[in-house]
Amino acid sequence: MKSETKSEIIDATNRVLCKHGYAGLTMQKIADESSLTTAAIHYHFDTKEELLNAFLDNLIERFTSKLASEATDPRERLTAFLDAVFSSPNPDVDGFPVAIMELKSQAPFQTLFRERFLDLDDMVREIVVDIVADGIDEGHFEETDPNEVAGLVTTTINGAHARKVALGEPLDETRHVLETTLELHLGWNPGSEVVA
Amino acid sequence: MKSETKSEIIDATNRVLCKHGYAGLTMQKIADESSLTTAAIHYHFDTKEELLNAFLDNLIERFTSKLASEATDPRERLTAFLDAVFSSPNPDVDGFPVAIMELKSQAPFQTLFRERFLDLDDMVREIVVDIVADGIDEGHFEETDPNEVAGLVTTTINGAHARKVALGEPLDETRHVLETTLELHLGWNPGSEVVA
Repeated sequence: MKSETKSEIIDATNRVLCKHGYAGLTMQKIADESSLTTAAIHYHFDTKEELLNAFLDNLIERFTSKLASEATDPRERLTAFLDAVFSSPNPDVDGFPVAIMELKSQAPFQTLFRERFLDLDDMVREIVVDIVADGIDEGHFEETDPNEVAGLVTTTINGAHARKVALGEPLDETRHVLETTLELHLGWNPGSEVVA
Repeated sequence: MKSETKSEIIDATNRVLCKHGYAGLTMQKIADESSLTTAAIHYHFDTKEELLNAFLDNLIERFTSKLASEATDPRERLTAFLDAVFSSPNPDVDGFPVAIMELKSQAPFQTLFRERFLDLDDMVREIVVDIVADGIDEGHFEETDPNEVAGLVTTTINGAHARKVALGEPLDETRHVLETTLELHLGWNPGSEVVA
């Protein structure tokens, strides 16, 4: 498939999910949001599930590149991580919060979706475990269980995104609370500057 | 409406939401899960939204009564609160996690649902603020910002339920992490016994 066509279908799917939710997603609406016909979309994706799986691939890929950081100091890596997950997403570019919530609500019924979310979750957890373990090794953070901190961080992120999408609650508030909590666990607040 | 009929429709709605999700919810499937005809269900509820709003009412009512505690000591109240929100729900009785997630995923598109979830959220937050403030007043907890602790607790609960439903992750793990974190904030671990 030409990558522009794929991008166009993915972007249109994102807009339909954000406007109508999973329950309102049809090939016709995706066609309406793009320059393609339903026949053209069906030519690329046999089923709605196949299309949504490609959409999820794309979403995870973009999230992964957003999490990539050049920093080496574990404190800077932690701040960069929080910047990435709490940045106010531009729905046209990221399509993250609403679309993720819509597909996540399908995870109990679609094994394929659930597996993708489990992979994403493992990846996020591992990043946090690495940062915390390195920070302890290098003497920047107090002794603590990196797995426990990673569990807290990923659960809080899950909750923050659900609240942002469902309740319209600002992400900033949760970030602040998480920073205070991390300070209690690590003895260092990721909202503070790293003085070299 | 006879309350048995209402209960039967609500219970059938719960089963359909847990089996097929919001996207698969139809009046026909609710009729199939009950002894009623679609005509009888339509007689009681004009639209699917009206039925789901009654369902949400019932869910919130049951959750509220689950949170009611006889305890007066803030430490016992905190433990009872965590017991209530982290108890493994029996889907036939509580219908909580999957059904809540399904309707929450509709909150961006349905103002009525969003308002109900905001009410529920405010209620849960207020309970935690009260417990923490009382615990500080009575000298059981260290000085801390009750609103901040309540924000952390409600966000973690949101995240824990989303992870339980979407990823199948056990609630116990999150409870343990939240208890450790509360110990750092309050100087008291809700997993420990209150010695009178």
